[in-house]
Amino acid sequence: MLSQSKLKNIRSLHISKYRAQENKFLVEGDKLVKECLSGAFSNRFALKEIYALQDWIDDNLLIINKFKDICFHVDHKQLHQISLQKNPNQVVALMSFDPDLDIHSPETDKLYLALDRIQDPGNLGTIFRLAEWFGVDCIFLSEGTVDPLNPKLIQSGMGSVLRVPYEKIDLNNWLSVHSKKIPVYGAFLDGESVYKKELSKGGIIVIGNESQGINDSLRKYINHPLLIPKFSNEQAYPESLNAATATGIILSEFKRSVI
Amino acid sequence: MLSQSKLKNIRSLHISKYRAQENKFLVEGDKLVKECLSGAFSNRFALKEIYALQDWIDDNLLIINKFKDICFHVDHKQLHQISLQKNPNQVVALMSFDPDLDIHSPETDKLYLALDRIQDPGNLGTIFRLAEWFGVDCIFLSEGTVDPLNPKLIQSGMGSVLRVPYEKIDLNNWLSVHSKKIPVYGAFLDGESVYKKELSKGGIIVIGNESQGINDSLRKYINHPLLIPKFSNEQAYPESLNAATATGIILSEFKRSVI
Repeated sequence: MLSQSKLKNIRSLHISKYRAQENKFLVEGDKLVKECLSGAFSNRFALKEIYALQDWIDDNLLIINKFKDICFHVDHKQLHQISLQKNPNQVVALMSFDPDLDIHSPETDKLYLALDRIQDPGNLGTIFRLAEWFGVDCIFLSEGTVDPLNPKLIQSGMGSVLRVPYEKIDLNNWLSVHSKKIPVYGAFLDGESVYKKELSKGGIIVIGNESQGINDSLRKYINHPLLIPKFSNEQAYPESLNAATATGIILSEFKRSVI
Repeated sequence: MLSQSKLKNIRSLHISKYRAQENKFLVEGDKLVKECLSGAFSNRFALKEIYALQDWIDDNLLIINKFKDICFHVDHKQLHQISLQKNPNQVVALMSFDPDLDIHSPETDKLYLALDRIQDPGNLGTIFRLAEWFGVDCIFLSEGTVDPLNPKLIQSGMGSVLRVPYEKIDLNNWLSVHSKKIPVYGAFLDGESVYKKELSKGGIIVIGNESQGINDSLRKYINHPLLIPKFSNEQAYPESLNAATATGIILSEFKRSVI
């Protein structure tokens, strides 16, 4: 059983500030924890501890045999305290991360996403899942983008957050450097149809904030503005597409053009 | 000010069962209520009453002049009771709907979505928004699909739920009839690449439940199984795409092929 101070320490990781301070975060639920046990995460992360109900431990003796030194039994009440979910799912893993690993210098033939202040954890999780599906090489996150190591976000992203490389950057500075040699794309209402534009194999795709779109100060770096054409019967609605679905459609267009 | 029994009656509409009983539902927030005041909803709906903070009424005198007989002042406490949001946004509208209007008999040159037990309100809202963007003619909802008139869902769908025709059906029976004359598409792991398949102008696209996909019993009606190819570096992950993003990519493919 865990001590009160240990529980308190784990619970603090529900908050982004403490995750950044401790370089630790939580992964919840049978499916995702089993992915972690099988090593399905990038080398910036490490599995530190597992907190599980006795039933889960009994059902998974073979799998956790290798991890028994770091596997701790918790009861339902403690699991509730550790978990961010209303109905916690048997097991939670404590992971650590190296904030300095995985520095990517973009290359011309690779595909990148650069996210400008994405706010909604569900959207960011979905974008990571899409990025993994479409083989995006790295996701660059501007200041003001929600923390990807939020447990709910890891869940909504089906664990893709643990496998797709990402980096936090000053997006303005970063684009000012890399837009000189790598094509930069972004969706705008006055862009060129994504169905007609000839897309390069690699490049940087900028995705804007859910309500404000791409920051005006970044527009000058986006040398290939794109438009997802609208086929609505009533032209006024909807005003826009959801950030994650727009990302999916644009990534699909990049990949369909190279096969 | 509203009476307690009136408040209770309005609050009951947070629950799907009472919405179906009363044929009424709520629309929340300045942006969506203003769309309703401008008449941006289909003719199966009618605007019945508006509940607003005095500040909102004062700021929108010109707009609500036409509606002053059905506009009621509420204080912050009452707004909190009416609203499903943590931080309610000034105004809520009460709408009615005609459950029997808008019976669509599918035609071969029109595009339809048929949703098989979509559970997540956010996903269903996003699918309605996508459907409006891509000019889908009607969305057919199986039994077991979440109620589209949930106030949170209307919000996440940017009000598209109020404009895109939809109908609740017995999906199995419905497909057994219409699959005889209209092409039926659906995403499967062993389908034909959506990038290579020649897509018809119209048809029915079946979208499956978030965790279980399309029900096995429906498979026989889907004469055009589709696949969204995966470009992941590690083939095991992610296992699937989110239902709403997959819908977006497939709709985009249908529309790009006819322009």
